[in-house]
Amino acid sequence: MQVVSEGSRWMLRLSEGDDLHEKIGSLVDSAGVKAGAVVMGIGMLGSASIGFWNGREYATRELITPHELVALGGSLAIADGRPSVHLHASLAGPTHAVVGGHLVHGKVGILAEVLVAGFPGRTFGRPMVESLGLRALDLEPAPSE
Amino acid sequence: MQVVSEGSRWMLRLSEGDDLHEKIGSLVDSAGVKAGAVVMGIGMLGSASIGFWNGREYATRELITPHELVALGGSLAIADGRPSVHLHASLAGPTHAVVGGHLVHGKVGILAEVLVAGFPGRTFGRPMVESLGLRALDLEPAPSE
Amino acid sequence: MQVVSEGSRWMLRLSEGDDLHEKIGSLVDSAGVKAGAVVMGIGMLGSASIGFWNGREYATRELITPHELVALGGSLAIADGRPSVHLHASLAGPTHAVVGGHLVHGKVGILAEVLVAGFPGRTFGRPMVESLGLRALDLEPAPSE
Repeated sequence: MQVVSEGSRWMLRLSEGDDLHEKIGSLVDSAGVKAGAVVMGIGMLGSASIGFWNGREYATRELITPHELVALGGSLAIADGRPSVHLHASLAGPTHAVVGGHLVHGKVGILAEVLVAGFPGRTFGRPMVESLGLRALDLEPAPSE
Repeated sequence: MQVVSEGSRWMLRLSEGDDLHEKIGSLVDSAGVKAGAVVMGIGMLGSASIGFWNGREYATRELITPHELVALGGSLAIADGRPSVHLHASLAGPTHAVVGGHLVHGKVGILAEVLVAGFPGRTFGRPMVESLGLRALDLEPAPSE
Repeated sequence: MQVVSEGSRWMLRLSEGDDLHEKIGSLVDSAGVKAGAVVMGIGMLGSASIGFWNGREYATRELITPHELVALGGSLAIADGRPSVHLHASLAGPTHAVVGGHLVHGKVGILAEVLVAGFPGRTFGRPMVESLGLRALDLEPAPSE
């Protein structure tokens, strides 16, 4: 993976086989980004799993053939001391029809280009919210979280 | 709603029931943003209306069930002295198929994460263009507009 | 086309008939942007061609009727001394269903709003990678490339 930065903005160039969540989360250690937004992502995914939250769980669809990554957005936070990357993706297959949702996992095929905007000095959190049954972004978590 | 900023960039964390246009437009009063781009938005919408401009009017589809917000883009301007928020959205339902278009309105379900990039010192306009029959973004409106 | 900037960020307002790749690429000459990310794009396209890379070539679909541009992402580099703009787009037609992929070409209908984030002092490359059969983004090309 190539990474270059400008101010508090990071551009990533991922390669075949790279895991999207893992590579974006690696900015925590390599660049000290503990709060960020994933603002752009394009390229190709070799495989992916997308989910629709039905109120209790993610109804998922496994994409086992390559899809064009046409849009990517999300956030980078710290949960339980580790990188927490939340992504939503739009993916186009051979018919050009677009499917999308919560990106459960995505593995790069050929290449991907991703832009992350950071919030230096901040740490976003993603605590479990029991009433929702899922983890929710917290832009200003209490220091203890 | 939570809001944090870094330079001329604002991250918003919206909650169940929040109106997307209204909350993004509130940055005009709360942060003095009179010119901006909505660069990222993900989460869930509880309900929404999306439109396709057929040359005369928006052909709209009402989404009355929750949809994953997979992509959001747009701009923030001032029209007639008030916030003017123009958004396009991509939304995925339970089948993961994505529908989208001009976002006429969207109400957050569970939560949404939105990033806005501002242009300090500028005011974008959105005057009605009679020949088009719709309001169009103007990056450098005359002072009188 | 209108263009305004803030720091290393450019907002473009395109008009009917503008070619997306050409107008974004014009930032190389007009603003000296030799490395950038296309982070947002909305509006309407009058015509477009979208491609799915099948491993050997782009399987393309020609859209000859207007479509809402609901998402746009990509990168701006220099290849063979000229602007190289790589875009992926999500487009919605009258049924609101979204199709997308690699944007082979796109001509603006009515208007489009685009945001580009630059990396001043850098030059991204897009050399042909023979093993892939396509040009691939290089964030840190050797000076000779």
